[in-house]
Amino acid sequence: MSGRMLSEIGEAAIISGIRGMNGCDAGRNGVLAGIGDDCAVVQPEAAEDLVLKVDPVIMGRHFSAGDSPYDVGRKAMGRVLSDIASMGARPRWHLVGLAAPPHADGGYIDGIYEGVASLAGKYGSVLVGGDTSCSDVISINVFGCGALPHGAARLRSGAEPGDTIYVTGELGGSFASGRHLRFEPRVREGIWLRDRANAMTDVSDGLAADLWHIAEESGVNAFIAASLIPYSPAALGSPDPAAAAFFDGEDFELLFTVPASDADFNSDWKSAFPDLRCTPIGVIGEKSGNPFVKYSPADDSGAHPRALPKRGFDHFRTDKEEP
Amino acid sequence: MSGRMLSEIGEAAIISGIRGMNGCDAGRNGVLAGIGDDCAVVQPEAAEDLVLKVDPVIMGRHFSAGDSPYDVGRKAMGRVLSDIASMGARPRWHLVGLAAPPHADGGYIDGIYEGVASLAGKYGSVLVGGDTSCSDVISINVFGCGALPHGAARLRSGAEPGDTIYVTGELGGSFASGRHLRFEPRVREGIWLRDRANAMTDVSDGLAADLWHIAEESGVNAFIAASLIPYSPAALGSPDPAAAAFFDGEDFELLFTVPASDADFNSDWKSAFPDLRCTPIGVIGEKSGNPFVKYSPADDSGAHPRALPKRGFDHFRTDKEEP
Repeated sequence: MSGRMLSEIGEAAIISGIRGMNGCDAGRNGVLAGIGDDCAVVQPEAAEDLVLKVDPVIMGRHFSAGDSPYDVGRKAMGRVLSDIASMGARPRWHLVGLAAPPHADGGYIDGIYEGVASLAGKYGSVLVGGDTSCSDVISINVFGCGALPHGAARLRSGAEPGDTIYVTGELGGSFASGRHLRFEPRVREGIWLRDRANAMTDVSDGLAADLWHIAEESGVNAFIAASLIPYSPAALGSPDPAAAAFFDGEDFELLFTVPASDADFNSDWKSAFPDLRCTPIGVIGEKSGNPFVKYSPADDSGAHPRALPKRGFDHFRTDKEEP
Repeated sequence: MSGRMLSEIGEAAIISGIRGMNGCDAGRNGVLAGIGDDCAVVQPEAAEDLVLKVDPVIMGRHFSAGDSPYDVGRKAMGRVLSDIASMGARPRWHLVGLAAPPHADGGYIDGIYEGVASLAGKYGSVLVGGDTSCSDVISINVFGCGALPHGAARLRSGAEPGDTIYVTGELGGSFASGRHLRFEPRVREGIWLRDRANAMTDVSDGLAADLWHIAEESGVNAFIAASLIPYSPAALGSPDPAAAAFFDGEDFELLFTVPASDADFNSDWKSAFPDLRCTPIGVIGEKSGNPFVKYSPADDSGAHPRALPKRGFDHFRTDKEEP
């Protein structure tokens, strides 16, 4: 559709193009009826729970006008896959709600859908529906649905005293480095961790905010050491690597806790995922009705741990500070 | 949150408010984990299929700045419930993606969520997640998930030669009359029709476009009579009632076909739904690889039927014409 505006192409042709591009035929992945009816119809596996997530990507907020549409679509899908992964689920189905101005180029929109399809295909999610509508600003809402055995979802609320806190990959500077457009959602790792982790989340708001989520939902205190954090090259090149890891967000790595009794965890991880770092950064402390998160600064390891501010990315606040 | 801007309230407090308002506790409706984790976790019933739908409502396109936020939220939820109903499914879970400017009033946003909750509660759907993000224009993306017995979904593709074509309620002038903000999704009727209709859809793009959907997906010709159409008062007050019913859209009534052999259909409907009209407007003709839809004009009933244009609401085209 490149070189033609959406207003020339028309909604029916856009949907028809998507329907062809994504190979969303009925029959795959439990899809009984895909694009082309009022709703998609899907058949869950017996004795499986489903995980549901919707996440938006909006021009000017989550990407810039100059970013490649393929990368933008890939990010929109990747954010949702990262959330599905953080539950320990496998992706199954997704729907895409796209809003764009009538004068948007058809090729740009194609690029977004191709980016969505690239990651979806890699991780086995089938496009089953969606919607195109007119708006002054381009936005993509991906709804994702994953599946896992009944009762097996890893929640933020599962952390136990004595657990080791781990994080995959490297943290910080995701926006500055452009990694926020090209990250790999940790789908296979999340499924593997389903049987090993007590609590799990993905690092989307920043290590500080996401560790606070685990502490508050689990009702436990948490302690980490800044010297243990796996900083990204972008974070290491910034004035304050710890602040970058704590507060930048959009790393889309997995943050999880593992029982202290799981003595083989590190070696098993290395066997399963030899190419991805998995770093212990701290421990879960005692249960608490009023939990806190503390960290030992890298340059001051003999001092008492300091309170880690909860602040992370807030879509509405401008000051970004919390007491 | 009335009287305060979203930028003052902050995302965490907004989500906390939603979490409290909607009573989305785990345990209801198969919800294992609701708002507050990376994804919602839900448990489908054994031997049931799911229907999935996402639909946006955008200020300036689907509603005006002066519309009541309660009505806007109600419409956003109602559109999705109407699609779920048109499959014959019962609503189970929904997620809401809201985008708004930082200076938006918290009370306005509360009103939107209250409108969503009013219809969701009436028809048994539980809010299990969502997202708030920052955008120049207010938009609400509702993702809905419904359920029904395996294989029971009513598709657009099920119409058979000889079927009678029915429509619920009255058509036309939905925007002009404001009904598009206050319609009742036909959830109970859709579930009832699951065992009676061959094909079903809802009238969202307009009778013409939606009947074309059935004809094309089923591979059948369709004939209707303009004199049989149940016109709304707004359509009757317009210069061309048939054009209003054919092309206005957003009626959110059910359009479906019933086998000619179902002799008790009309009386059974009247017993089940004494307060809602259900009107036969035409018949399904022969199977065709190149289907058409024809209508007999009201003022010219002795003449040959005329081709019904396919045009309906297209979000990107400005001329709205199709050959």
